[in-house]
Amino acid sequence: MPALAGRMMQMPLLISSLVQHAARHSGDVEIVSKRVEGDLHRTTWAEVERRARRVAQALARLGLQAGDRVATLAWNGHRHLEIYYGTSGSGLVCHTLNPRLFPEQLAWIVGDAADAALCFDLTFLPLVEKLAPAMTSVRHFIAMTDRAHMPADSRIPGLKCFDELVDAEDGAYEWPTFDENTASSLCYTSGTTGHPKGAVYSHRSTVLHAYAAALPDAMCLSARDVVLPVVPMFHVNAWGIPYTAALTGCKLVMPGPHLDGKSLYELFESEQVTFSAGVPTVWLGLLTHVQQNGLKFSSFKRTVIGGSACPPAMMHTLERDFGLEVIHAWGMTELSPLGTLAKLKAKHEVLPAEAKQRLLEKQGKVIYGIDMEIVGDDGAPLPWDGQASGNLVVRGPWVIERYFGQDASPLLTIPGRGDWFPTGDVATIDADGFMQVTDRSKDVIKSGGEWISSIELENIAMAHPAVHEAAVVAVAHPKWDERPLLVVVRKPGQSATREDLLAFFEGRIAKWQVPDDVVFVDELPHTATGKVQKLRLREQFRDHRLPTA
Amino acid sequence: MPALAGRMMQMPLLISSLVQHAARHSGDVEIVSKRVEGDLHRTTWAEVERRARRVAQALARLGLQAGDRVATLAWNGHRHLEIYYGTSGSGLVCHTLNPRLFPEQLAWIVGDAADAALCFDLTFLPLVEKLAPAMTSVRHFIAMTDRAHMPADSRIPGLKCFDELVDAEDGAYEWPTFDENTASSLCYTSGTTGHPKGAVYSHRSTVLHAYAAALPDAMCLSARDVVLPVVPMFHVNAWGIPYTAALTGCKLVMPGPHLDGKSLYELFESEQVTFSAGVPTVWLGLLTHVQQNGLKFSSFKRTVIGGSACPPAMMHTLERDFGLEVIHAWGMTELSPLGTLAKLKAKHEVLPAEAKQRLLEKQGKVIYGIDMEIVGDDGAPLPWDGQASGNLVVRGPWVIERYFGQDASPLLTIPGRGDWFPTGDVATIDADGFMQVTDRSKDVIKSGGEWISSIELENIAMAHPAVHEAAVVAVAHPKWDERPLLVVVRKPGQSATREDLLAFFEGRIAKWQVPDDVVFVDELPHTATGKVQKLRLREQFRDHRLPTA
Repeated sequence: MPALAGRMMQMPLLISSLVQHAARHSGDVEIVSKRVEGDLHRTTWAEVERRARRVAQALARLGLQAGDRVATLAWNGHRHLEIYYGTSGSGLVCHTLNPRLFPEQLAWIVGDAADAALCFDLTFLPLVEKLAPAMTSVRHFIAMTDRAHMPADSRIPGLKCFDELVDAEDGAYEWPTFDENTASSLCYTSGTTGHPKGAVYSHRSTVLHAYAAALPDAMCLSARDVVLPVVPMFHVNAWGIPYTAALTGCKLVMPGPHLDGKSLYELFESEQVTFSAGVPTVWLGLLTHVQQNGLKFSSFKRTVIGGSACPPAMMHTLERDFGLEVIHAWGMTELSPLGTLAKLKAKHEVLPAEAKQRLLEKQGKVIYGIDMEIVGDDGAPLPWDGQASGNLVVRGPWVIERYFGQDASPLLTIPGRGDWFPTGDVATIDADGFMQVTDRSKDVIKSGGEWISSIELENIAMAHPAVHEAAVVAVAHPKWDERPLLVVVRKPGQSATREDLLAFFEGRIAKWQVPDDVVFVDELPHTATGKVQKLRLREQFRDHRLPTA
Repeated sequence: MPALAGRMMQMPLLISSLVQHAARHSGDVEIVSKRVEGDLHRTTWAEVERRARRVAQALARLGLQAGDRVATLAWNGHRHLEIYYGTSGSGLVCHTLNPRLFPEQLAWIVGDAADAALCFDLTFLPLVEKLAPAMTSVRHFIAMTDRAHMPADSRIPGLKCFDELVDAEDGAYEWPTFDENTASSLCYTSGTTGHPKGAVYSHRSTVLHAYAAALPDAMCLSARDVVLPVVPMFHVNAWGIPYTAALTGCKLVMPGPHLDGKSLYELFESEQVTFSAGVPTVWLGLLTHVQQNGLKFSSFKRTVIGGSACPPAMMHTLERDFGLEVIHAWGMTELSPLGTLAKLKAKHEVLPAEAKQRLLEKQGKVIYGIDMEIVGDDGAPLPWDGQASGNLVVRGPWVIERYFGQDASPLLTIPGRGDWFPTGDVATIDADGFMQVTDRSKDVIKSGGEWISSIELENIAMAHPAVHEAAVVAVAHPKWDERPLLVVVRKPGQSATREDLLAFFEGRIAKWQVPDDVVFVDELPHTATGKVQKLRLREQFRDHRLPTA
C-alpha cells in the first residue's frame, strides 16, 4: 500500500480496449485484405470488433479456457486480426506461428506451447495435413475461410470452418476485465542454436508498446494514415501494428501472401497507403519492380525498416528517388519488438545533409519506456562516445523477463543498475543516445585481436551498383585467426569482378578491414524472418581457402 | 493470479523514469526560463535531473516523508520543474497552488491538503507573509531563489532558500521504486460553488497521460520541438507538458510571470519555439501585440488551445494570418487534463475547406485511453448524430475516481456500462466521434423548454470585427423562463452599437436564439484559470430588464 494512493480510475490496460476504441471512434475506417481466396476483402474496425466477439464466443464454445494457447498459421488479413482480438481479448493467448520455419520446428513449437487450437489460412492446408498427427495438443483445427472454400475432403480430423464458427454466434458478448499482466500472445524466436524460445507478451506490455509505437519519434501514426504492414503478423505481431492501428484508428491494408513487388505496388496505389513497415529484403523486390517499370508512389510517405540493418544504399534510393522518409529501426522478438528508431533531434536539424544521413543510418534512439547500455565482456558499462562498441543490453516494460516455460533468467545483472536483457547485438552509442548496431555478437569477425563489423562491410558492398545482395562472414585464417569473406549476389546482367569489388572498399574503410576474398553466388540463404542466415553461410564457407592464408 | 501470466519485465510507470529518460537520452537539451529575478536562465535536462535528486534529498532532510504534500506557488520555470520531479520522484506529492485564487481560498486549500511545505516564487512573498499564520500545517516555507535574492528580513518564520537547500546536497540519491498507483501530484479545481476539490494524480495516470499527450493526434511532440507552455504549471500541471517534454526529450521554454504579448513574442522568437499551449484569453494579448506591430512568427508552427472553447474567429486569424495549426482541445482538472483534440481523420481530408474548419472548431475526438458518452438527464446514452446534446461523461486511466479526502463517489453509473465521470459539460458527438461542447450544464440558457448554447452565441459575437471579448448569460424572462443577454467588451476605438451586434446574428443562427439585449462593459471577470466567470456575470445582470420582457 502506498503512503498516499492516487485517486484515479483503476482501468487495466487490456487489448480488448484497443479494438473497442477503434470500433467506437473509428468504426467506419476500413481494413482491406488481399485474401488467399484471391479476392480483395473490405471490412471495418466496427465489423472486426463484432467478429472478434464472435471468435471469443466460438472458441469458448469449443471448450477453450483462459490461458489456453490458440495457434495461427496465417498471412496478414482481417481474419487473422479478428483472431488476434478474439483470443487475447477473451483471455486466451494468441500464438502466431511462422510458416517459413521447417515443418519439424513448427511441430516442436506447437508441442512446446501446448497449443489447444490451430487456425490456418488455406495456403497451409497441405502443411497442416502433414503435421496434424504430430500436433497432439491441438484439439481443434480451424481453416480460416468460408464454407464455399472449405476443402472437399481433408485428412485433418474434425476440421472446422472459421467463418461458419463465427457466423454461428450472436456476438452478445462482453469483453471481460482481468489483470493487465495476463499473457496475451506468444511468439517464438527463430533461434539459430538450440530450440526456439517463446516470448510471452502481456496485455500491459502490448498496450504500452502500442502507445510508444505511435509516437512522432517512432512510427508517427495518426487517424490520417493508411498503413500496410509488409512485416507479417506472425513476426512479432507485425511489429505491433495491429494494435497501434487500433489505437490511432487508422486504415489497415493487409497484403495476404502477395509480397512480390508488383502485388505490393498495386495495393500501395489502389488503397493510397501512406505508411509501411518491413525488413530490408522486402524492399529489394518492391524497389526492383518500381525501378524496372519507371513507377512512382502517389501516396506513400514514410516507412520503418528494421529486422536487420538497412543498407544505406537502399535508404538513399528510397529517399532520393522516391521521396520517402525511411525510418531505420531496431528491435527484436524479446522487445515486442520496438527498441530504437532513427529520428533526428532539434540540434541535428542544422547539420549538413551528409551528417544527418549518417545519423539516420544508425539504429537510433530509444523510445521512452526502453533504456539501454553497452557493456564489455566483464559486464561493465562502456562510454557513449560513438566509438566504444560493446554488448547491447536493454530493459523496459515491454522487454521479456523470462521465456515461456523456462525458469532460468536470461537477464544480465549490472551491479547497482538492476537487470537487463542481453540482446546479442554489438553496438556503439553516441553522446546523443544514437545506437548503432555494428554486428551480432556471434557474427563479428575477430581479426588479430581487433573486431571487424560484418555489417559495415556489407553496407559498403551493397552500395556497389552491381550488387543485389551481400553478406560478410568470418573465415578461419592461420595468422589473423579470422578474416572477412564477402559473399555477393550480382544484379541481373552485371559482371563486376572480385577485383572490382575489393577496389570499391579502398578509401571507404581501413585497409586491414577490407575482405580477403569475394565469392559470387546465385542467392543468399534467408531465415524465416527474412534475415541472411550467417550461420549457414559460415558453415558453407568454413573450408574456403583465402588467398591470404 | 491470471490463468497464464505474461513474462515481461515488471517496471512500474514512475515519474522519476521520465526525467531519468530525458537526462540520459537528451541530457544536453535546454530548459530556458525567464525568471522572477529578471534574468533568462539556461539549464539542461541532465542538470534538472541532478538538481531534482538534490531537492529530494533536501526535503527528506527537512523531515518530509512519502505521501507528504509539498505545495508550490510558482510560475513556469526550472525550479518549479525541479520541484515537480524532486517531490513526485521521491514519493512526495507535488501540490500546485493557483496564485490567482483569493488568499482565503488558498489558505483553505493548503489546510485541506495539509501541505507540509510550501515553495514559492518571490512574486508571492507578500502573499505568503500574509497567509503564513493561517497555514498551520506548513512546517517549511521555501523561497525559490538564490541566497543573493533572499528577502533581507521577512515575517515568515524560518524562511529557507531553495538554491541553498539544493546546493547543500551531494545528489548521491537513487530514485526509489514503488507502486505506480502512488499519489504523485495534487491540483484543486477552482469550483464556482462550494469549496475547491482536489484531484490526486498517480504516477501511473501521469505517465499514461504523458504518452497519450505526445501522440500525433494529440500534441504531436517530438525531439525536434521547442515547447513553450503558456498554460501555467499550477493549472493541471501545465496540461502535462513538463512530463510529455521529458518523454520526448524536447526543449522547454518557461515564460515565468511574463505572459503579456510582447514578452511572449520575444521569447517565441529568441528561443525558436515551435509549439505552445494555453487558454484562449492568452492568445488575445499575443495576437494584439503581433497585429499592432505587424510581426510574424519565424518558428512557431502549432498550438493547442483549450481550457474553454476557442472562438472560431480567433482560430481563423491564427491559421490564416500566421500559418499556425490550431489544435482545439478539451479537458479538465479531473482528466489530467486531456480528453479530446480536434485532428482530422483520413476521410476528412477530401472535404471542402469550410467543412474541415467546422470539424476543427469542435473539441474533437478522444485520445485512446479516454472514452466518452453523452447522456440525458435520465442517465441514458444519447445518439452520436452531431445533433442530440446531453451531459458529457468520460472514463479512463487518467480520470479521477474520487476527490482528495472525500469518500463520496462523484461518478455516474450507466446501467451495464460501468462508472463514468460527469464533466458538467453539455455536448454533442457526431458519427465520427467528434465531440462539441455546446455549454456548461449550468450556463445553458433554457428558453421556452428549448436549450440555447451560450458558447455558440459567443462565437458569433467574437467574429464581429468590433468585439474584443464577449459572453452570453441567461437572464430571467416572464414568458420564456430564460433569454440570452450578450455582454461585450469592444476593441479600442470601436463604437459598434447594440443594433449592429444584434443584426450580426441574422442569418447566422435561428431567430429565436438571437440574444434579447446587448450590454457593453470595460472588461469581463475571469476565473483564476482564465475562463469568463459566468456565475459572476449572471449575478451582476440578474436584475437586467430585457426589452422583450
